[in-house]
Amino acid sequence: MALIVQKYGGTSVGNADRIRNVAKRVKAHCDRGDRVVVVVSARSGVTNELIERAKALNPFPDDREMDALLAIGEQETIALTAIAMHALGVPAVSRTGPQAGIITDAAHTRARILDVTGGDLKAQLDAGKVVIVAGFQGISQGGQVTTLGRGGSDLSAIALAWALKADVCQIYTDVDGVYTADPRVVPDARKLDILSCDEMLELASSGSKVMQARSVEFAQKYKVTFEVRSSFNDEPGTIVKDEAPNMEQILIRGVAVDKNQAKITVTDVPDRPGVAATLFSALGEEGIVVDMIIQNIGRGGFANMSFTVGKEDMHRAEKISQKVIKQLGGGKLEVSGDIAKVSAVGVGMRTHAGVAAKFFGALAKANVNILMITTSEIKISVAIDPAQADAAARAVHAAFDLGKA
Amino acid sequence: MALIVQKYGGTSVGNADRIRNVAKRVKAHCDRGDRVVVVVSARSGVTNELIERAKALNPFPDDREMDALLAIGEQETIALTAIAMHALGVPAVSRTGPQAGIITDAAHTRARILDVTGGDLKAQLDAGKVVIVAGFQGISQGGQVTTLGRGGSDLSAIALAWALKADVCQIYTDVDGVYTADPRVVPDARKLDILSCDEMLELASSGSKVMQARSVEFAQKYKVTFEVRSSFNDEPGTIVKDEAPNMEQILIRGVAVDKNQAKITVTDVPDRPGVAATLFSALGEEGIVVDMIIQNIGRGGFANMSFTVGKEDMHRAEKISQKVIKQLGGGKLEVSGDIAKVSAVGVGMRTHAGVAAKFFGALAKANVNILMITTSEIKISVAIDPAQADAAARAVHAAFDLGKA
Repeated sequence: MALIVQKYGGTSVGNADRIRNVAKRVKAHCDRGDRVVVVVSARSGVTNELIERAKALNPFPDDREMDALLAIGEQETIALTAIAMHALGVPAVSRTGPQAGIITDAAHTRARILDVTGGDLKAQLDAGKVVIVAGFQGISQGGQVTTLGRGGSDLSAIALAWALKADVCQIYTDVDGVYTADPRVVPDARKLDILSCDEMLELASSGSKVMQARSVEFAQKYKVTFEVRSSFNDEPGTIVKDEAPNMEQILIRGVAVDKNQAKITVTDVPDRPGVAATLFSALGEEGIVVDMIIQNIGRGGFANMSFTVGKEDMHRAEKISQKVIKQLGGGKLEVSGDIAKVSAVGVGMRTHAGVAAKFFGALAKANVNILMITTSEIKISVAIDPAQADAAARAVHAAFDLGKA
Repeated sequence: MALIVQKYGGTSVGNADRIRNVAKRVKAHCDRGDRVVVVVSARSGVTNELIERAKALNPFPDDREMDALLAIGEQETIALTAIAMHALGVPAVSRTGPQAGIITDAAHTRARILDVTGGDLKAQLDAGKVVIVAGFQGISQGGQVTTLGRGGSDLSAIALAWALKADVCQIYTDVDGVYTADPRVVPDARKLDILSCDEMLELASSGSKVMQARSVEFAQKYKVTFEVRSSFNDEPGTIVKDEAPNMEQILIRGVAVDKNQAKITVTDVPDRPGVAATLFSALGEEGIVVDMIIQNIGRGGFANMSFTVGKEDMHRAEKISQKVIKQLGGGKLEVSGDIAKVSAVGVGMRTHAGVAAKFFGALAKANVNILMITTSEIKISVAIDPAQADAAARAVHAAFDLGKA
């Protein structure tokens, strides 16, 4: 008699057969006596289709109207999923994000959740109904439909699991769980049974695209344990939870590769206090997320600085940097769009020495040339040539014996 | 500085070009200083597409979920239309039926309007905005999205025109207005400048498919004057209003043809009080609308009765009649699926004698064999062989000089 929140992504509800498949899965839980809230995304492709329609009319569509438009993608799948559940004889009812009481701020297209009232979900569950909730959407305090931005449906599910005090929160996706590395790159990559939110966050920000960081952050903040698992089989997935004591026995949890990085180097800038602040606040104001940063003082009191950004931001970052250099009184700019980042992540790093040494040793043995290094409490990352990225991932994976349970 | 409610149907917002066309039309009004509320339908085809998707999952989808599903069709067009208005520099904001305060009963898929609060429409108009409202949909007092059934968007527009005390209500469609007869059948058919609600109602129920009767009934009840006109040109359309004194000078307003009728004849039923009541309440309970009815007493105290129904209801009506005959103690049933109805409509009929004589005379001269006759205060209808329907319409049209202004 568990209360379960399940989230199904766009590919899991992509057509009639897949919606039927979701309905069958949910029914199996109902037959066991579980109470189920199902959060669904829009059919894959629908959101992009709607964006295209809007842009055909207006290259810069209004955010508020875009939210009103995009919200219909999930509204379609909740109704269809409820209708499919009825065909299996399961009482089910659909609820939009606003009806489920997902209250957000008014930042259209990227709204943040302020509160989750749950609407009449408890009453519906008590009446024996499965409730199908539209992910990705909420309602502002002014009564307007908002959307939560990328990865919003995962966030909806985790937030509802928190609000309803669910026993289990399952994020169904098209992968089996979180792996020690990308199995397409590292053949002996292994699915992880358990993972801390911190590790999941570092993996997410290191190019492991299973989930967006904000959903994991929400889960961590509100102590929601969730499971990432596949909607195409019945295998258990990966449990992501707040750190448990025995977790630290494992040194490194996984290796992540992100080949979509660009590196910008600023040299020969007159060194005085505030150089870094000026540059990075200018980038921040334009919404550019800077990942790795290295600064040192070059010859003759000039500052040298390198940083990486997502490749999609490269040209904007270059322009902004150019402007800042002028402002600062000169300097040179060098941009490389071909940078990969390889990271090793694990909470065990906090308490164990020698992790960095082993990591760099593995890369050296694989003959990988390191361009930049950054570290956090539970992560070591290096920027390298993308051509060497896969080999580097395999080398690190092997050095830490990640292929063995 | 008029307050105008405009309604655009599914073909008028069928693609990006047409939505742009609607936006331009609305802008022209704004440029003149008018305040405009735009009611839009779903893109043509979308509603059927959604119904198909639902039926692929469940042949008998739940009405409440169908409403949640179908409502997204209009939600798409309101957002896209607002976005297109922005591209022309016109401030516009979209509102769903619920947001516009279209309050309905809870009869999902065929909800009836209980009240129209207008939501924040007045405030938006006062703030200089065009408001784009989703037609066809409302909200039940229980907070669920409802749809109004066929012709619902026209009804939304007329109800909003009433609630906002609009100066003008324009129903944009793919025809130029209401004609004296179908121009494809009667070459000299003429567009009417003005028409009473009564006449429009009789024309609607006589196969002139410009608008559903319930929208006209609502307009009549709440004294909303509206104009039916084309969204593809700038010609004035047909004004439909509560009867004006000078209207009665015109004897016959138009001729309508409905080839989609079936005739059921019940003969040799023992005649006793309540025979007709039993039969027609049985049909009414199953939601079958009976159109023409003729009863007379045959030989030996047996009742004979003929009635017509829409061809789509023929088989159900036959089954029900069969059952009723058994119940009544016997009788015979005869069904003909090939019946046309030709009607002449005009409020002038009320005060002028000789209309019927002229009508039947025209049909006789055209050699049309009459199967059934019914009359109302402002309409004469005959059931005839569909093969003769067009000739009959032309004959009546000519006899009353309808081709001349």
